[in-house]
Amino acid sequence: MIILGIDPGLANTGWGVIETSGSRFRCVAYGCITTDGAMALPSRLARIHESLSEAVAKYRPDEAAIESVYFSNNAKSAFATGQARGVAILAAHGVPLGEYGPGEIKLAVVGAGDADKHQVQYMVRVVLGLKDEPKPDHAADALAAAICHANSRTRTSLAGAAS
Amino acid sequence: MIILGIDPGLANTGWGVIETSGSRFRCVAYGCITTDGAMALPSRLARIHESLSEAVAKYRPDEAAIESVYFSNNAKSAFATGQARGVAILAAHGVPLGEYGPGEIKLAVVGAGDADKHQVQYMVRVVLGLKDEPKPDHAADALAAAICHANSRTRTSLAGAAS
Repeated sequence: MIILGIDPGLANTGWGVIETSGSRFRCVAYGCITTDGAMALPSRLARIHESLSEAVAKYRPDEAAIESVYFSNNAKSAFATGQARGVAILAAHGVPLGEYGPGEIKLAVVGAGDADKHQVQYMVRVVLGLKDEPKPDHAADALAAAICHANSRTRTSLAGAAS
Repeated sequence: MIILGIDPGLANTGWGVIETSGSRFRCVAYGCITTDGAMALPSRLARIHESLSEAVAKYRPDEAAIESVYFSNNAKSAFATGQARGVAILAAHGVPLGEYGPGEIKLAVVGAGDADKHQVQYMVRVVLGLKDEPKPDHAADALAAAICHANSRTRTSLAGAAS
């Protein structure tokens, strides 16, 4: 199964594609779509949508995963990220989508919901058997979301088989 | 000149198309794209994008206008609205877009930045010479954004001519 992970943001949208086979995970590709703040907003959103649509067309994911972000006190930042997240989800429309909280993703990848960014990057590298840690961290976070989704699927199907 | 106004929201995205000829405004069409909270998020965003893309294809606006929203204390709501705004802007990509604050729009339409919703609906009806007030208020707000954009253009070109 091919899983696409997405870490959306207006300036940086990370993406990562993994292939799962039983409990084995393989990294297929990853990247980060960067848009300059000097660009007009419609062009930034169009670039995110277009680049992510290309990744969806190229890697044909069976399922997708995205972080569900809740901001406690920065509505302006939430609004900007929300716009990027909207066009990112649209690019993957038609692919079943899982949404996971930040703590849920860290727990799935590192085993601790309060893990820091470096622990996440390290464990993404280990789990996927990569030589180097995926850069930038937006790409690592996207791969982490995909890993979380894969683990969540396994748990769900195991739970389903046991019931 | 044809101007498309957009009032984006995840549950309700209002839109309105006006035609300007000098200082005369005519209402061409308006509507509201409603998505049910029971629908999956990707489907809601896809419906907003698709319906608004249809309006853009049908009415071929020369320019577009959207409210720039800043939320003071509800980041969750800002995030949801941001996602809808992202796909709405994407649907109008390629059309020059003006962004206006809520107070700016009220000032342009009613003459008072702190006007209430009913005053806006009333003045939109009067300015566009409509028999009835446009409903729902999301459509009226979209038409108000388009009127604000038209007035802003006129002011800018007058300023340009005077300089």
